[in-house]
Amino acid sequence: MARTRRPGSTQRVRVEEWNGESVTRHEDRLTTEEPLEMRVQERGSPARRFGITMRTPGHDFELAAGLMAAEGVVAGIDDIDTVAYCTDVTLRPEQEHNVVTVSLTGSARRGWTARQMGATSACGVCGSDSLDAVEGLAAGAGRRAYAQGPIPRDLLLSLPARLRRHQRLFDSTGGVHAAGIFDTEGAAVVVREDVGRHNAVDKAVGHCLLQRIDPAATVLCTSGRLGFEIVQKAAVAGIGTVVAVGAPTSLAVDLAARTAMTVVGFVRGDRMVVYSGGVKVNTSP
Amino acid sequence: MARTRRPGSTQRVRVEEWNGESVTRHEDRLTTEEPLEMRVQERGSPARRFGITMRTPGHDFELAAGLMAAEGVVAGIDDIDTVAYCTDVTLRPEQEHNVVTVSLTGSARRGWTARQMGATSACGVCGSDSLDAVEGLAAGAGRRAYAQGPIPRDLLLSLPARLRRHQRLFDSTGGVHAAGIFDTEGAAVVVREDVGRHNAVDKAVGHCLLQRIDPAATVLCTSGRLGFEIVQKAAVAGIGTVVAVGAPTSLAVDLAARTAMTVVGFVRGDRMVVYSGGVKVNTSP
Repeated sequence: MARTRRPGSTQRVRVEEWNGESVTRHEDRLTTEEPLEMRVQERGSPARRFGITMRTPGHDFELAAGLMAAEGVVAGIDDIDTVAYCTDVTLRPEQEHNVVTVSLTGSARRGWTARQMGATSACGVCGSDSLDAVEGLAAGAGRRAYAQGPIPRDLLLSLPARLRRHQRLFDSTGGVHAAGIFDTEGAAVVVREDVGRHNAVDKAVGHCLLQRIDPAATVLCTSGRLGFEIVQKAAVAGIGTVVAVGAPTSLAVDLAARTAMTVVGFVRGDRMVVYSGGVKVNTSP
Repeated sequence: MARTRRPGSTQRVRVEEWNGESVTRHEDRLTTEEPLEMRVQERGSPARRFGITMRTPGHDFELAAGLMAAEGVVAGIDDIDTVAYCTDVTLRPEQEHNVVTVSLTGSARRGWTARQMGATSACGVCGSDSLDAVEGLAAGAGRRAYAQGPIPRDLLLSLPARLRRHQRLFDSTGGVHAAGIFDTEGAAVVVREDVGRHNAVDKAVGHCLLQRIDPAATVLCTSGRLGFEIVQKAAVAGIGTVVAVGAPTSLAVDLAARTAMTVVGFVRGDRMVVYSGGVKVNTSP
């Protein structure tokens, strides 16, 4: 079967730009969006479909590993044997780089009910089952003690600009989310970009997982807004502080308060809003 | 069982606002985020789980109906008998307004494979199955002829500001997406806000569906960026023009080109970028 090139993270397109009375035709760059199917292979079993997400190609193994950690399928890197593009002969060439299999060293740590929706259960049990699955994700997030005291204000205020400096895709397309994990000196451990806000976080967390970097003493900074799932992913990864340029949602703040995380939003210039947890004024540790 | 109040679309929270050297404590408003479980009841069968989405409470029936139309489970309002909050006795009081059942007049128009992921199939068939499901959504989008010629430039340029005027939740929380359906005079048919970009579109389209409004001669305007799924939802609804404040993705433009839709992004001031389809200069029809 002919192997195809891996899709790039941007694509060229011809556009018409209207600017007042003038119209120009030129080439523009778009962020690539492609479906990624993820599979889990438990030891001694055939691989099973885990889920599908629209994502920007690149760092796909980090994405798959990070998502499986967030959903509790793996508890750490020692649960993962290999991560690879699927070589299934039934795949068409253009699908070959859109299917990733995570092979486990043993069994999955938990069933992946959150993505296993719509299946066969009748009304009456399934309802509370699946709403409870969301509750379960929240409850599972609170087990760690964060290895962090209050974070200095000036560090928090600096993170959106530090994140922005690493946003290469945004520079070329103007339309893509970013998530960065920073140490408490403000150095970037990893920055990832993706059309999906959640994917960017999964890639950043997945990077730490695959590289055996302990994110316990780090801060997660995201472009855009902050929903429940982002705080949940940070909590499960053991990251105690989450910073966003935009607003958090009610459920995000709720979860942060329950798990003693620090959540800071609307970080712009020298202004920020602290929704949960502690911030200290001095900049030295 | 005690009935609970329906959750509001915003919630109050105590925050610390840091502004240069000053710290003030005050009340702030957050956009509410809660899970919504959707169920489908085919005639003569028990209800089955369709999927779960994190959403801002409000217009939940529109959301469920709009999503089911987008995914091809219903072809129109005549396929829907009732839409109601589930009265299942096993639900806990706080879940009662988070479960919506759509009862059909007959059978589902298509299986909802796109949300039915992770289930039981072994590797080898499931992979192409689920990537094909995404293809299927794209293919299903191209069946309609749009009841529209080119849209006047000045109308397109005016839509983000018109949308913004209806964003009540954004006014109070500063963090929520919006989608509006406008007629070709620029009047808002419906504007909906939600923490989820896709939900806002589903609610707007669902509103037209439930109110028997034909969106064929309308334009969809969304805050933020424009991914595949938003163009797909517009296409299935028969809306031929989509306008966004932000950038489209590669797959969004791809689908628009294949289905002869007009997609315009980066609409800011008197500048806009046309990625697909036709725009005309004159403002009169």
